[in-house]
Order: sequence, then structure tokens, then C-alpha cells
Amino acid sequence: MSLPAIILVEPQLGENIGAVARIMANFGLSDLRLVTPRDGWPNPKAEEMAAGGIAIVNNARIFPSLEEAIADLQYVVATSARQIRDMEVRSLAPRESIANIPEDFATGIMFGRERIGLTNDEITFADSLVSIPVSKDCPSLNIAQAVAIITYEWHLRFGENSVSKKPEKSPPANKTDIVNLFHHLESELDRKNFFRVPEKRQIMVQNIRNMITRAQPSEQEIRTFRGIIRSLTDENPGKKPRNG
Amino acid sequence: MSLPAIILVEPQLGENIGAVARIMANFGLSDLRLVTPRDGWPNPKAEEMAAGGIAIVNNARIFPSLEEAIADLQYVVATSARQIRDMEVRSLAPRESIANIPEDFATGIMFGRERIGLTNDEITFADSLVSIPVSKDCPSLNIAQAVAIITYEWHLRFGENSVSKKPEKSPPANKTDIVNLFHHLESELDRKNFFRVPEKRQIMVQNIRNMITRAQPSEQEIRTFRGIIRSLTDENPGKKPRNG
Repeated sequence: MSLPAIILVEPQLGENIGAVARIMANFGLSDLRLVTPRDGWPNPKAEEMAAGGIAIVNNARIFPSLEEAIADLQYVVATSARQIRDMEVRSLAPRESIANIPEDFATGIMFGRERIGLTNDEITFADSLVSIPVSKDCPSLNIAQAVAIITYEWHLRFGENSVSKKPEKSPPANKTDIVNLFHHLESELDRKNFFRVPEKRQIMVQNIRNMITRAQPSEQEIRTFRGIIRSLTDENPGKKPRNG
Repeated sequence: MSLPAIILVEPQLGENIGAVARIMANFGLSDLRLVTPRDGWPNPKAEEMAAGGIAIVNNARIFPSLEEAIADLQYVVATSARQIRDMEVRSLAPRESIANIPEDFATGIMFGRERIGLTNDEITFADSLVSIPVSKDCPSLNIAQAVAIITYEWHLRFGENSVSKKPEKSPPANKTDIVNLFHHLESELDRKNFFRVPEKRQIMVQNIRNMITRAQPSEQEIRTFRGIIRSLTDENPGKKPRNG
């Protein structure tokens, strides 16, 4: 089991980033990725709060977009405070969610902004959704507390020296491959006027992306899928050499 | 099950007290007891950090000694970062510890000072000890993080019926829908000369079918997928009414 990356999308308070780094160190994690932290980087408040996680703060990587932050990952879990209506991603409890992480996938767990969380668009990049069960009367968790609970469950299942090896399979596609497939398919659908009602384009794109993500395609399958798109849109089939 | 009290023994930082109150509210608890907080009481920093737990901060009770703080309780759990040498109290993991709390006892869970925790004398008041498993390299947990993990486990066992909720989802496609999708896609791929090497057609078809099956598409997703195929193969997009 490789150690999961923790991805914070547009985190606002340095204190929270530091507290996240500390709990990551408590549970043996190290790969912290920040998508455009609001107050810039480095952030002295993050350093103050990090305690034993100071090296994690110092080595945190900053990305200009979520897509870039997850580009090398093969399986991404999104945390969400709410059930996402209109989206066909099932939300799991933390224990169940961690149990479902495929072994030997490069994994990331992403957390949204304080208060507003992740957008539906961001969630389309996720292979699964996790929700921490909380009181209906006070559902808003501090982000570092949410990270604590999820990483605690991760540590319980996979913690130090839990090694397991799986037989080799066609390697799972990483998020770069998947995002490129999204863009290829969507640009062809735009060209073909598939999204006739502009207001519905976004939700339709989300549903298509979710369906593809859920299949957890391998690298080979992504190549096949892109070949299918090229083939279906080819108006002169059989007349030129195959381009990949 | 009565709700457990959370007892902080000589807490130092107001921020931590506020964060404890917030996570208590998240997990439906309300009874916060403080034994001689270092910076006095009330504490504005506790109020700032409390968010949805502000009422818990405002109603927190202050005690001059641990004995008085637990006087009305029937069962007390002490949290400890370490195994206590020379003491015959067995330390349990959080899940095990919560499972052992007798129902219908007035229960409290006590947490020690930042850094130095509880003294051995204080631990003698406890019926059981709980330790959160952490990395050997960085064992020092923030107190509010420790409270988060213990109260999360409490909430899982005893909280509001915290069964993971299912999102509403379009019903799963039946096999007729799926087979019709296979045939639609494969006939278009044949027409477009996708399978250039006839001997490989069968294995390629199998791989494509596997990928689709694995996504467990809903009825709605099958309709979307078929719409995508029609759109991609449409050589005059936008010039006729949509056919379904």
C-alpha cells in the first residue's frame, strides 16, 4: 500500500494547514499538496501549528489547479459534508471508504475549502466520496478534524508495516490520462452539438465524467476509449493509417 | 446510552478548548468539564474557535479538581499517549474502548494537559485507559484531534442513527439495456472499421464490454452513452431534430 497524498483545495487558514500536517505525521503520512492556498505560501501560521509535522509543511507542494495536483494519482477519494444530489457517486462512511481503496494504487484524499467544501466539478475527479457521519444540528467539521478522522481510519487499516502485494495487472490510468480523455470526448461532443441545451451542459458533463471515473479504467482501456472516439468521429474510415 | 462528559484536565490553550467544543457539537455531545484551565475562564480564544460548539463553551463547567469534575460519573475512561508502566490498567484502542463502555452508566472521557497528559495519580480514577495508535516517529497528538478521534468512535457506536445514507440514484440498467448498448457501439465500430485486425476483434470487444460493465451504469447513463454514440457518428450535427 502506498501512502496516500492529502490534497487541500484552496485552504484558507494557515493554522488549519499546519494542523493537517501535524495529524498526517501522527498517522505516518507525508505527501501534502495544496491547491492555491488563499494566503499564499509559505505561511508562518502553518509552520507554528505543525509541531511534529513541520517537515510536511516545508515539503508541501503547491499546485495552480486540482487537475495538476492529482495528475499522477490513480485513485482519488473526495470528502464531502453532504450527499451530492444529481450526481451518481455513492458516498461512504470513512471505514467503508478506506476499506474500498484499491491496494497499490497511487491514492489521494482531497478536502475542500473551509465552509464551502468541494465543488461538484471538483468531485467529478473522484473515484469515491466519503462523508463523516455528524450530528444534524452541527454538521460543519473543522478541516483538520476531518483529516484526523479519515487518516485515523487509514492508519487503522494500513498503518505502519502493513505490506501486501497484489498480482500485476494492466496499470490503472492516472488522472492525467483520464482528464485528457474527458477533454477529448467533450470537445468532440461540443463539435457534434451534443449539448443542445447550454444550461444542461455542466450537469451532463459531470454525469459522463462520473461514469468514466467509476469504471476505474486502466491505461490500456483509456487508449482503447480514445481510439473509439477517434473511430466514431472518423468520416472517412478505412482510408488512412491508424493514428495510434 | 447517556451522553459522555468530556473532561479536560488543566487545558492550556483556549484555542484547543474551543476546538474540542466544536467537535463535541459535531458528534452530538454537550457536557464539557474543565479542571483549572491555565488561562482562566471565560476565554475569548475558546469562543473564537468553537464555531457551532459555542453553546458548549458557554455552558462548560469549571472544577477545582479532577475528583470534583468526575464526582457524579459512574464510568471514566482516561486517554493516554503511552502505555502506563507499573500500573495494572490495560490500555485499549479507541474502538475497543468505546465498545467496553457499559450502557446506561454516567460516563466521562478525560484528556490530559497538552504535552504532559495525565498523571499516574489522575489515571487511578479511571475505569479504563484508551490509547490512539499513532506513528512511533511522531506520537504527540493535538488534544482536540485526540478528542475528535475518540468522540468519532463514540458517535459511530452510539450516535444518532449514523447509518451511511444512500443517494438517490437512477435505477441500475438491466442486462437488456446493456447488451443493446454493446450492439449499438460495436456495430458503429464495425462500420467505422475500428477492428482492423479481425483476429483481435473478439478480445477487443471483450475488453470494451468489461469496461462498461464495471461502471455499473444506470438506466439514465445508458441513455446518455447511446446519445454520445449517435452524436459522435453524426455527420451533420445540428441539422436535424434529436432522435431520442
